[in-house]
Amino acid sequence: MAQNDIQLVSSGLSEANSNLPWEIRRWTLTEGHSTGVEVVELKQGDFSFRVLPTRGMGIWDAHVGEQRIGWNSPVKAPVHPAFVNAKTRNGLGWLDGFNELMCRCGLSYFGPPGTDTGMDSPVESDVTLHGKIANLPAHSISFIEGENDEIGLKGIVDESSLFGPQLQLESTITTRLGENSIFVRDRITNLGSSATELSLLYHTNIGPAILGEGSRFSIPAKQVLPNNARSAEDVDTYETYLAPTEGYAEQVYFFETIADADGKTVALLESLDRQTGFSVEFTKEQLPCFTQWKATQPLQDGYVTGLEPGTNFPNFKSFEREQNRILQLAAGETYEIDLKFSVHTNSEEVSKVRERIAAIQGENEKTISTDPELPYCQVK
Amino acid sequence: MAQNDIQLVSSGLSEANSNLPWEIRRWTLTEGHSTGVEVVELKQGDFSFRVLPTRGMGIWDAHVGEQRIGWNSPVKAPVHPAFVNAKTRNGLGWLDGFNELMCRCGLSYFGPPGTDTGMDSPVESDVTLHGKIANLPAHSISFIEGENDEIGLKGIVDESSLFGPQLQLESTITTRLGENSIFVRDRITNLGSSATELSLLYHTNIGPAILGEGSRFSIPAKQVLPNNARSAEDVDTYETYLAPTEGYAEQVYFFETIADADGKTVALLESLDRQTGFSVEFTKEQLPCFTQWKATQPLQDGYVTGLEPGTNFPNFKSFEREQNRILQLAAGETYEIDLKFSVHTNSEEVSKVRERIAAIQGENEKTISTDPELPYCQVK
Amino acid sequence: MAQNDIQLVSSGLSEANSNLPWEIRRWTLTEGHSTGVEVVELKQGDFSFRVLPTRGMGIWDAHVGEQRIGWNSPVKAPVHPAFVNAKTRNGLGWLDGFNELMCRCGLSYFGPPGTDTGMDSPVESDVTLHGKIANLPAHSISFIEGENDEIGLKGIVDESSLFGPQLQLESTITTRLGENSIFVRDRITNLGSSATELSLLYHTNIGPAILGEGSRFSIPAKQVLPNNARSAEDVDTYETYLAPTEGYAEQVYFFETIADADGKTVALLESLDRQTGFSVEFTKEQLPCFTQWKATQPLQDGYVTGLEPGTNFPNFKSFEREQNRILQLAAGETYEIDLKFSVHTNSEEVSKVRERIAAIQGENEKTISTDPELPYCQVK
Repeated sequence: MAQNDIQLVSSGLSEANSNLPWEIRRWTLTEGHSTGVEVVELKQGDFSFRVLPTRGMGIWDAHVGEQRIGWNSPVKAPVHPAFVNAKTRNGLGWLDGFNELMCRCGLSYFGPPGTDTGMDSPVESDVTLHGKIANLPAHSISFIEGENDEIGLKGIVDESSLFGPQLQLESTITTRLGENSIFVRDRITNLGSSATELSLLYHTNIGPAILGEGSRFSIPAKQVLPNNARSAEDVDTYETYLAPTEGYAEQVYFFETIADADGKTVALLESLDRQTGFSVEFTKEQLPCFTQWKATQPLQDGYVTGLEPGTNFPNFKSFEREQNRILQLAAGETYEIDLKFSVHTNSEEVSKVRERIAAIQGENEKTISTDPELPYCQVK
Repeated sequence: MAQNDIQLVSSGLSEANSNLPWEIRRWTLTEGHSTGVEVVELKQGDFSFRVLPTRGMGIWDAHVGEQRIGWNSPVKAPVHPAFVNAKTRNGLGWLDGFNELMCRCGLSYFGPPGTDTGMDSPVESDVTLHGKIANLPAHSISFIEGENDEIGLKGIVDESSLFGPQLQLESTITTRLGENSIFVRDRITNLGSSATELSLLYHTNIGPAILGEGSRFSIPAKQVLPNNARSAEDVDTYETYLAPTEGYAEQVYFFETIADADGKTVALLESLDRQTGFSVEFTKEQLPCFTQWKATQPLQDGYVTGLEPGTNFPNFKSFEREQNRILQLAAGETYEIDLKFSVHTNSEEVSKVRERIAAIQGENEKTISTDPELPYCQVK
Repeated sequence: MAQNDIQLVSSGLSEANSNLPWEIRRWTLTEGHSTGVEVVELKQGDFSFRVLPTRGMGIWDAHVGEQRIGWNSPVKAPVHPAFVNAKTRNGLGWLDGFNELMCRCGLSYFGPPGTDTGMDSPVESDVTLHGKIANLPAHSISFIEGENDEIGLKGIVDESSLFGPQLQLESTITTRLGENSIFVRDRITNLGSSATELSLLYHTNIGPAILGEGSRFSIPAKQVLPNNARSAEDVDTYETYLAPTEGYAEQVYFFETIADADGKTVALLESLDRQTGFSVEFTKEQLPCFTQWKATQPLQDGYVTGLEPGTNFPNFKSFEREQNRILQLAAGETYEIDLKFSVHTNSEEVSKVRERIAAIQGENEKTISTDPELPYCQVK
């Protein structure tokens, strides 16, 4: 992909980690619909990942050596927001830009498009798929250059309008030298003078090779629910994945998760051979609603699964409000979200996460609903 | 705000003004939603202002010494038009880019969004808030570099479409060395082969420090009208402003102005202590409809007032047409508009404008309507 | 028009053509709504043309010496897709960017906007005027630098979305040294896992001087049909053109063409004096539906005619599907389209094409329908 000169922002060696070398590099893509998209690459030893400040501080992908962690969306390269028109495709135009390993949906709304009749103001009632944040560029980019054996970057994304919500995301994305993990530390502040709603989901997407036939998903949970009749067909096998399947229509499961004593929980996707995995760790109180997205369509169409912790479920916003799941952020209030995304490259590491999930589940019963149920799902 | 290297276009000393130094500088913003926005700064002595060719030749702000003239919109920095989608927010997406001291609304239409049933062509009947001109970039930028003790720039903005209106704005924006004034000389030409409509408003927005509790507005007027029931609540105090007020909903007043013997009139906003002020001078025949916009919401939400001379009032376009206020521009015809925006930095200067307004008002009666009235307002 | 430094990509002399010099140059436009539009100019001797990779590999214009081949759209310069909002103007926003000599309409749909009730998926049923391809930028640009006495460029344009069609256009545009011709070799591949629809039209637009009062159009045809009642008024004179005419409303004719033994056919526009002409040669099987667009409005409004070979006619897509004219592209299938656009600069060359058209027509009867007829036209 054509790009301008790579700028080496910073580099060093970690004394605490056997002189592990690290680098921060940045460049801008210069062709096709990627023109103008800035990329920041954080690399330490074998592990690297690429952040897209231009796409709301999303994470394009990660690498462990040659292995790419992410997915192969039909949308082939990062898309500059100027080429994403939220109103096309009946409000689903967001899909034209969707290809990241981690893409935020929000901040004012996410989920399907429509008219949110719960909002009086026309500035706020016009809901398009998954909101605005992924197509808003960050500013005030700064770097963490080896402090405390961490490297990373910070950026600010404003989702503001006159007479509309004023939500500011300050996102700090780092990695600790010696760990194959990405730490996302988001602070969302209501800069307006009155309370406003916050609705945010971390659309975390993994394709091959970690995803494949027989790959397993697990998370500590009290309840698992299919979001609709189509998903209900296979709720019994929510934990395992099909091979790329012609004619497959997406299936979505909602989870009432269980946290450990520290309030944390973790979701794991592991390959059939249990040698590789990807996990998302988060705090249940910060992100109480977890969604699993199965999209095991053929490879060409973007074979992928989503591990998606959110402040609410991806139902239409007015339904989520009725269930009291839309957060209210008071004037000046900051909402804190911390996540850890980890790549596991051997069976020992994978087992450790699996065992941790089992431990959190412990004696807790897990109810698997055979049908969509209130208050989690929209029941017709 | 990140930007590329500042280019000094031109500089000099005004002999006629005790060797007053002046400079023209230009640069391009390079981060966040401002990426790609060109800025031209015109500076003479203590007075400077910044023009945004990329946003339809709007004026971002002005400075007298350290004092900034403009307002603090929730939208924090100039927004590149690629990030403003007119169709989002139920046709109010224009608000996502609104933060200038002076922003044109038009050229084909301004006012609220909707379907203009008076236009047969679907190319013209789809009206979005405040039109297209503020999100169209200028080309053919040239500079006035000290000629006749003036500095400034000229730019051309095309609002054209096949099978649609072909309106071309040639805007010349200058300052006279030694005066804290901005002269806007707009020439709008119908390049099409048949008559077309012109609808243009100068959305001129002032926040603190000139605007504050007890600040006063004045303009010579025969009639003052509230635009709706909400505005009618406080029509008696249209001349004064509230402090930033929680829960305040905007109020709008329309004015049938009075001009002097030369056809000119002037609107003034002055601070409570009458030490500072901002005035807009214009020709009544060119801009027959004046609107005052009170938006004294809390500071965080963009405490601001608008002094808005226009070719018509900001009612929905089809209503304005019914009242015969939409201009018709014949093929090849040019409509001329000249405005003078001035910053007044001492009580003597402020008084001079206040006295001029009083002199134009003279014996003329001023009727203050307690309710919206035809033909000025849409009465339900 | 402001632009950055011209880059000479390649140049040489054709030994086979008396040392004819050729050059490939590229630059990027840097002002107004053209900012960011890349231009590639191919030049050989007196003949040159300019391709716009940023606008879906469209052809801006051509020149023979000083004579410009193209048209003068009210839209004055190439428009960056960021300034074209498909959803404005009631789905006709595409018109805000339309000014090329050759502009593709497609790839999923073209024709008027609306809701395609034949598509179940909301991702595909939202149809805007003439589709997306003209406002998608190409990537992977490469050059043909004199090989086999050809110069040209190749680019790839992706029209892809998750859950939507995945159509990839690989376009090779060349000229043969010594010929005033442009060869377009398009390969459209369905990268998805299942069949998808392809709908593509080459909107080829010629204005003065080749177009003028009395200019003639010809194409070998079995049947000619007016697309609607307005076009039916003048179907008898479809072959000739009016001078620029005030109040003229566009007229459109559909053709069932006839091909020669090699499957090729050709459309010609020739000037009244028969000294100059423009022709489009194509393969009937690849592009079975030919449309003539007469838009002889006044010069200021874009006096122009369109010679438009297409995979189907520019009726609303669902109607075209009902008539079985929408192509189905199987998973992985590539559709090939080859066109030759030629400028003819003397009566001998023009006569040769005219005679070729007469020869293909031969004894074949040409039916001229006086009214729109099924299955070609939407009959109300």
